[in-house]
Amino acid sequence: MGPPPPYALGANRYGKAEVRVLRVDRATPRHALADLSVTSQLTGDFEAAHVAGDNAHVVATDTQKNTVYAFARDGIGAPEEFLLRLADHFTGSFAWVTGGRWTAEQYAWSRIAVGDTGHDHAFTRDGGEVRTAAVVRDGDATTVLAGLKDLVVLASTGSEFVGFPRDRFTTLPEATDRILSTSVTARWRYGGAVAYDEAYAAARTAMLEAFADTHSLSLQQTAYAMGSAVLDAVPEAVEIRFSMPNKHHFLVDLAPFGLDNPGEVFSAADQPYGLIEASVLREGAEPAGAVWASAAGFC
Amino acid sequence: MGPPPPYALGANRYGKAEVRVLRVDRATPRHALADLSVTSQLTGDFEAAHVAGDNAHVVATDTQKNTVYAFARDGIGAPEEFLLRLADHFTGSFAWVTGGRWTAEQYAWSRIAVGDTGHDHAFTRDGGEVRTAAVVRDGDATTVLAGLKDLVVLASTGSEFVGFPRDRFTTLPEATDRILSTSVTARWRYGGAVAYDEAYAAARTAMLEAFADTHSLSLQQTAYAMGSAVLDAVPEAVEIRFSMPNKHHFLVDLAPFGLDNPGEVFSAADQPYGLIEASVLREGAEPAGAVWASAAGFC
Amino acid sequence: MGPPPPYALGANRYGKAEVRVLRVDRATPRHALADLSVTSQLTGDFEAAHVAGDNAHVVATDTQKNTVYAFARDGIGAPEEFLLRLADHFTGSFAWVTGGRWTAEQYAWSRIAVGDTGHDHAFTRDGGEVRTAAVVRDGDATTVLAGLKDLVVLASTGSEFVGFPRDRFTTLPEATDRILSTSVTARWRYGGAVAYDEAYAAARTAMLEAFADTHSLSLQQTAYAMGSAVLDAVPEAVEIRFSMPNKHHFLVDLAPFGLDNPGEVFSAADQPYGLIEASVLREGAEPAGAVWASAAGFC
Amino acid sequence: MGPPPPYALGANRYGKAEVRVLRVDRATPRHALADLSVTSQLTGDFEAAHVAGDNAHVVATDTQKNTVYAFARDGIGAPEEFLLRLADHFTGSFAWVTGGRWTAEQYAWSRIAVGDTGHDHAFTRDGGEVRTAAVVRDGDATTVLAGLKDLVVLASTGSEFVGFPRDRFTTLPEATDRILSTSVTARWRYGGAVAYDEAYAAARTAMLEAFADTHSLSLQQTAYAMGSAVLDAVPEAVEIRFSMPNKHHFLVDLAPFGLDNPGEVFSAADQPYGLIEASVLREGAEPAGAVWASAAGFC
Repeated sequence: MGPPPPYALGANRYGKAEVRVLRVDRATPRHALADLSVTSQLTGDFEAAHVAGDNAHVVATDTQKNTVYAFARDGIGAPEEFLLRLADHFTGSFAWVTGGRWTAEQYAWSRIAVGDTGHDHAFTRDGGEVRTAAVVRDGDATTVLAGLKDLVVLASTGSEFVGFPRDRFTTLPEATDRILSTSVTARWRYGGAVAYDEAYAAARTAMLEAFADTHSLSLQQTAYAMGSAVLDAVPEAVEIRFSMPNKHHFLVDLAPFGLDNPGEVFSAADQPYGLIEASVLREGAEPAGAVWASAAGFC
Repeated sequence: MGPPPPYALGANRYGKAEVRVLRVDRATPRHALADLSVTSQLTGDFEAAHVAGDNAHVVATDTQKNTVYAFARDGIGAPEEFLLRLADHFTGSFAWVTGGRWTAEQYAWSRIAVGDTGHDHAFTRDGGEVRTAAVVRDGDATTVLAGLKDLVVLASTGSEFVGFPRDRFTTLPEATDRILSTSVTARWRYGGAVAYDEAYAAARTAMLEAFADTHSLSLQQTAYAMGSAVLDAVPEAVEIRFSMPNKHHFLVDLAPFGLDNPGEVFSAADQPYGLIEASVLREGAEPAGAVWASAAGFC
Repeated sequence: MGPPPPYALGANRYGKAEVRVLRVDRATPRHALADLSVTSQLTGDFEAAHVAGDNAHVVATDTQKNTVYAFARDGIGAPEEFLLRLADHFTGSFAWVTGGRWTAEQYAWSRIAVGDTGHDHAFTRDGGEVRTAAVVRDGDATTVLAGLKDLVVLASTGSEFVGFPRDRFTTLPEATDRILSTSVTARWRYGGAVAYDEAYAAARTAMLEAFADTHSLSLQQTAYAMGSAVLDAVPEAVEIRFSMPNKHHFLVDLAPFGLDNPGEVFSAADQPYGLIEASVLREGAEPAGAVWASAAGFC
Repeated sequence: MGPPPPYALGANRYGKAEVRVLRVDRATPRHALADLSVTSQLTGDFEAAHVAGDNAHVVATDTQKNTVYAFARDGIGAPEEFLLRLADHFTGSFAWVTGGRWTAEQYAWSRIAVGDTGHDHAFTRDGGEVRTAAVVRDGDATTVLAGLKDLVVLASTGSEFVGFPRDRFTTLPEATDRILSTSVTARWRYGGAVAYDEAYAAARTAMLEAFADTHSLSLQQTAYAMGSAVLDAVPEAVEIRFSMPNKHHFLVDLAPFGLDNPGEVFSAADQPYGLIEASVLREGAEPAGAVWASAAGFC
């Protein structure tokens, strides 16, 4: 192949994705579950691997997977704490690993309703909403992000959309009473250590209450209100980002069938959808663009 | 093209699938939601359409969709009742429509927790589990099926699998304490009219309690126990069918890392999976194979 | 729990689903691939397992999976042949296994275009369309079904839909030049042994040519034409079934923007969709409803 | 609610996602198709919308959708060109729109094989692989990214993985002849204008040939080789990023069944998977982290 082409290795990271681990706490006959999908990716000096096929620095993705399972033996705790343990391990064990990205999805389970307090060891999985966590480390800087996704909400009134500009391509009528529905994906960044489970619960509650109690003039305004509510409720949160599809519900025109439709029958469409993305920052918070870029996709 | 080929039209049905309808009950400021995906398919004399391209009998799928929305104007009620109204309409309005298959998925919503009784018009969608309903009509025979799908359950103990035959290809060790997990798809057939919402709730509860309380010797045995419990709890149910993947959870071997693993750390695998399908019939129930075939897929 | 409830075990089957096997033919440096997802389910005398938790008859699903891999050692051949080998093995090895259902999806790969004949051992996977096969055995009766799914086709003209009945709920205008698009799922039943790969190729070609060359008066008529073409092309095929969504493409109304739209700009909608299901039988073919029910879903 | 909380609006963008547009070129009876899913998101001064519910700047997402359809009336051309037209329109028409992100997926269709040159107006959709394009504008800076996703490749030999570090958690044996398979997602950034369709074709070919011809010491090395090949083949490309899952194929241990397995029978697992992400830059190329962050997800 001749000499290697004169191209530079740019940003890179690698690891094992979607390691599904279920941890059963059997300390008493009343079991408890921690059910996660964990992804571990390392950054550091991996140039020789890419350019020369020298794997001396390549901690195998299989090894990363094994480490997840081994660490689960001692318990999981909050997902943020589990990811921090992984980050410390990998950056502490291999001199050339200077950072990485560790993420988790956590699936919730409820006890099957038998007796007053639910069954000891039989559960149903709560569908839909998923808790997320991410730890991004770059040298000395470590950032913890908490979040959730697939939290579908709907307000059957209390939402309008008026006053928007009209151009040649505008046909949408103004709406003074519409359905507002979205599937919330949110991530918030902590400025420091926090009781992760309690902070998560507080953030989630604040977000839902803000959605419910805001008379919405747009999904943008609702997003800002939800973000502000989280920053109010969780002092350690310094920034929050939302990605929220506007799940359109169209009032069906029943007039051809001789029927009125006073806000009662809607068709739901999956596609296309509005896509509202916005962030809210505590005053004085440092920007963290690189962290967000790392938490999201690579390309 | 010359004369038509001498082939016979066989079984056929057609209609509109996945009509997403949201009905908001606004009778009082405390709104209520009915959120369904409805499929309507007609059977009858459609030979000319297939063989000769004569559409005189082809009630347009668009018309079927419109009918769903128009009927929703009067309220949805139990999904089984809504489907029966559709069945009566189509078979009653078009002489050549002698039957059909109408199915629905219903998505549940919960009020956002604000105050003592939850918000009046803001909701979160319950993920995962979906209620299903089907009406199959063939001439004078009408069958109503109720069901659910995507109900994921797990027992962290109380499950074993021993005593199975061993041949040349058997490597699975016997297990005296394993995790049992499945995603329940169930449909049950009613022998006559019933209070559909109450019967659904009773069947679901019976099924879950049987899963929780059965010391499982196999998923087959658990399925039979769950089916029996439904027949016990709902006298109008005459037959129940389950399709249940055995969602394998493997105890991770931590010995290479110097760790024991006394039933605590499991890896979950999506694929491949066991697939257990079984039905339980009330004594004396007539077989209904054609109904089940109609409710399931066409090919 | 007291005596077992007096309920009868009905139809049942069980096994391992979605066993992903890749077989590399390395007989020469020019490798060849067979890439399948195989499902094996057994029927027979499994009453004791369900009713009494006695697993003496339960050939473990893990054993069924192992058998798939072991049999692949000798080569796969046509997927129908591979499934027949599995059927013979299971019904021949266990007296109480009297039948079953074995299905496969086969994924196609093409050689990466290097040189005149493509690379010896580097491939790209052909997306979309998947070949399917099924063997259904019930005692002495064995049926072989071949098929495909996810074959998306579109005709940009040569399709109309007129002459359908109009009722109170009909708003659809007649269309004399519309787009016709569907994702073909088809299965056909063989009356006897056949050269499976050649028959598959002939059926697929016949189906596509019929779609292309039929001036369509409805998707029903197109389905019948496609089925007839397969029966013409493959003498051993005695019946064919189609399940075809009508993937609607709507002409966008550009008039509000001062533009015409002479059949050029369409929006595509995933949901809802028409669903056309039809079968075509060779004259004199015996009905095979139970086989089709078995090939399709259980509930 | 009292005074608004003192929080700052951070990064934000909004628009319409997944607008499915099919453009039929009917200039001659030999039709041609352009089939895209387009997303349009605007950035600029949208603070009042978020903070005060003032929509005077909010170009409705419905308007953005309409604009996509209206612009398609004049033809689509290369997807990059279509997105640039949209970018110019929105930033040129609304003073407060200072940038945005426009992306497209393009689905390919092939003529059904009838006669020597294929059918004039009947097509099959090529599954799997999807072409992608993105335009990111921020004030005066406009970046064009081209790419593809879901291109699944496999090498049945010519891949090894040895020499990686071993720690307490390492159990993976070294492999001197393994299967290498991945689903390529790639995006590359152009430094200036280019003939987009030709450049896309050249990049795709270079990438595939590099995959096929590289004796792989790791997927990282293969990624670097693929990226280098694209930079060689397309002078206007200044940077390329890959996200590639390592789709593991495990050699099945057939020894318990008395069989050898000389690299012939593999099981494929979807989960977990290795995830290799890497970029290659032309020497002297300016970093473009913000562009990549914008092209990828928001949070």
